[in-house]
Amino acid sequence: MTKGRTEAFSDGVIAIIITIMVLELKAPLGEHLEDLHPLWPVFLSYVLSFVYLGLYWNNHHHMFSATRHVNGRILWANLHLLFWLSLIPFVTSWIGESHFAPAPTALYGGVLLLAAIAYYILQGQILRNEGPQSLLATAIGRDLKGKLSPVIYAIAMPLAFLRPWIAGALYAGVALIWFIPDQRIERVLMAHADAAN
Amino acid sequence: MTKGRTEAFSDGVIAIIITIMVLELKAPLGEHLEDLHPLWPVFLSYVLSFVYLGLYWNNHHHMFSATRHVNGRILWANLHLLFWLSLIPFVTSWIGESHFAPAPTALYGGVLLLAAIAYYILQGQILRNEGPQSLLATAIGRDLKGKLSPVIYAIAMPLAFLRPWIAGALYAGVALIWFIPDQRIERVLMAHADAAN
Amino acid sequence: MTKGRTEAFSDGVIAIIITIMVLELKAPLGEHLEDLHPLWPVFLSYVLSFVYLGLYWNNHHHMFSATRHVNGRILWANLHLLFWLSLIPFVTSWIGESHFAPAPTALYGGVLLLAAIAYYILQGQILRNEGPQSLLATAIGRDLKGKLSPVIYAIAMPLAFLRPWIAGALYAGVALIWFIPDQRIERVLMAHADAAN
Amino acid sequence: MTKGRTEAFSDGVIAIIITIMVLELKAPLGEHLEDLHPLWPVFLSYVLSFVYLGLYWNNHHHMFSATRHVNGRILWANLHLLFWLSLIPFVTSWIGESHFAPAPTALYGGVLLLAAIAYYILQGQILRNEGPQSLLATAIGRDLKGKLSPVIYAIAMPLAFLRPWIAGALYAGVALIWFIPDQRIERVLMAHADAAN
Repeated sequence: MTKGRTEAFSDGVIAIIITIMVLELKAPLGEHLEDLHPLWPVFLSYVLSFVYLGLYWNNHHHMFSATRHVNGRILWANLHLLFWLSLIPFVTSWIGESHFAPAPTALYGGVLLLAAIAYYILQGQILRNEGPQSLLATAIGRDLKGKLSPVIYAIAMPLAFLRPWIAGALYAGVALIWFIPDQRIERVLMAHADAAN
Repeated sequence: MTKGRTEAFSDGVIAIIITIMVLELKAPLGEHLEDLHPLWPVFLSYVLSFVYLGLYWNNHHHMFSATRHVNGRILWANLHLLFWLSLIPFVTSWIGESHFAPAPTALYGGVLLLAAIAYYILQGQILRNEGPQSLLATAIGRDLKGKLSPVIYAIAMPLAFLRPWIAGALYAGVALIWFIPDQRIERVLMAHADAAN
Repeated sequence: MTKGRTEAFSDGVIAIIITIMVLELKAPLGEHLEDLHPLWPVFLSYVLSFVYLGLYWNNHHHMFSATRHVNGRILWANLHLLFWLSLIPFVTSWIGESHFAPAPTALYGGVLLLAAIAYYILQGQILRNEGPQSLLATAIGRDLKGKLSPVIYAIAMPLAFLRPWIAGALYAGVALIWFIPDQRIERVLMAHADAAN
Repeated sequence: MTKGRTEAFSDGVIAIIITIMVLELKAPLGEHLEDLHPLWPVFLSYVLSFVYLGLYWNNHHHMFSATRHVNGRILWANLHLLFWLSLIPFVTSWIGESHFAPAPTALYGGVLLLAAIAYYILQGQILRNEGPQSLLATAIGRDLKGKLSPVIYAIAMPLAFLRPWIAGALYAGVALIWFIPDQRIERVLMAHADAAN
């Protein structure tokens, strides 16, 4: 079974999720620059979610580029990940409209947590299929980031009820940690390509 | 004629259908966790429809991975399937907003029934083109699930007018039956790949 | 320059156009089957537009499967076609909401006319690039349907102001004429494939 | 790392951006041709944005067809470009609804400016990866258009507060300059293909 169609379907779903979020950014009724002011929380939540979905797409891209085979379990683990990602527009819209109120901010973390767990399950299914000596297993290594992120989300969620901005900063912090994650798999893939020549 | 573009187009349509459904999950006006409470039927119907569309994508993926050729009839049979699938967001929205009222629940089954029939027609057109000795014909076998599902939908529809939850349970039950369908085609494909080596 | 990405982009745009139209089919406020009644014109216009977009996708698929090269002019002729197709959800929504009133029905024909002309221009650009002895030129032949359809749309438009249903019937009639168009290119492609073996 | 999936994801995002803009073109409440009249600014802004997104897709297509490799930096530079492009439906909707008022028209130029800068950064990252002797470097040459466009946007933005139509004319003018940009890369690619034969 080829992995191409799974990649294409995931690309499609992530592309749509990332794009329909912008529908929340409704044109203001007024026509002056000041009328943009109330849109700041909506815009900020859009940027955060855009970066998160970009990160997921990037990591998904890297993981599958080091994957040779897919099976039925991987297809479902992938759909499971896409399910939680598909809820990001909903929670983004809620934190935007409620101006980062406690409950929406906590729920945002909950969706990030479940997406992170789903990604971890997907990665586990692929690793199980590829084997412990595989390119992907080498590339992922100890996977410190993958293990740390859910812990931070779990800490941020209750904090959101005390100070939402702390939770928001933690979500942004995790995004920052992941921002340069590609190099890990990329380096191994390049070393592998060099060795092949 | 290559099948690649038919797969890509179907992926696109299913990816969009699965994603626009989340637009129904509108951010609540309030900012407390209790404000999420009225969203439960909408969320539940979203989960059910997500699983169904995931199943259709998975089965479509498996069927086409065992398909060698497409023709004009197959293209139209595929568009016919996509038509009924495209109505799923509409009926999902109706059962969600009406809190699983009888008529919407019955209509949901009607769309599932017509999609199942459309899938059956598509499968028949592909089998006719591939021949009775083809890989796909072997993989599908007696197709017990494919024949049973429409019967269950047809039974569930009138029951929805008596007790909507029975119909809902039957829809969920069919989804459960299909949840591990891949292994059938997958096993034959793997045996085929092994024999080729 | 490969044609693959042009096909993929066109698939994406047509898949989205065909799917967002269903957003017009809003869940009725009531929860009884009778509440579906006012939706009939919206549903009918959805079916008509779905069939038209399916026809365009099918013909586009066939035309590009017989195309070997694309150039800058072809890319723009393709975008020009996608522009008119992208207006179909708008006119579909208008005829649905106005219950096939004269002006919306005429405008629907106008968009179909401009899309047909755009398709004709695109086909001309591809033929010019492929040459008169090409596979595509042979497959298209005299292109009677391609020349007849715009004429019918042009006749239907003024008639829509007298009797909208006549225009609607003419639009449906053209769709019917095109319904089995594939065989033309398909037959030539198959003959070509046979000759190659 | 293959560039195919980056192209597919970009195609998906641009296809969705270009298509969801049409959702702003809402069916008028009346059913006469006169009722279309108030839609003119919305339609005009839709055409302008459609052309701009078509230009970006075309240029993106050409640039990547001359690109051999992608890396993590290129993926992020690409996502950065898609981010600014994703704001085009928002500013299009604002200029359409405000009938090309000064502030929305200036903001539209701001988004075009940031998208142009993002494109320039992406091009720079690809060039850096491909090398100064690469096909792409030869094809781009001095990149007069790429350097001139942001300057024109920067001039148009303050002018929008004096006379919005001047800014609008400048945006349309830049689009016109880019309308036939393909030939540059196309000519080099064809010369390269000829030399290879």
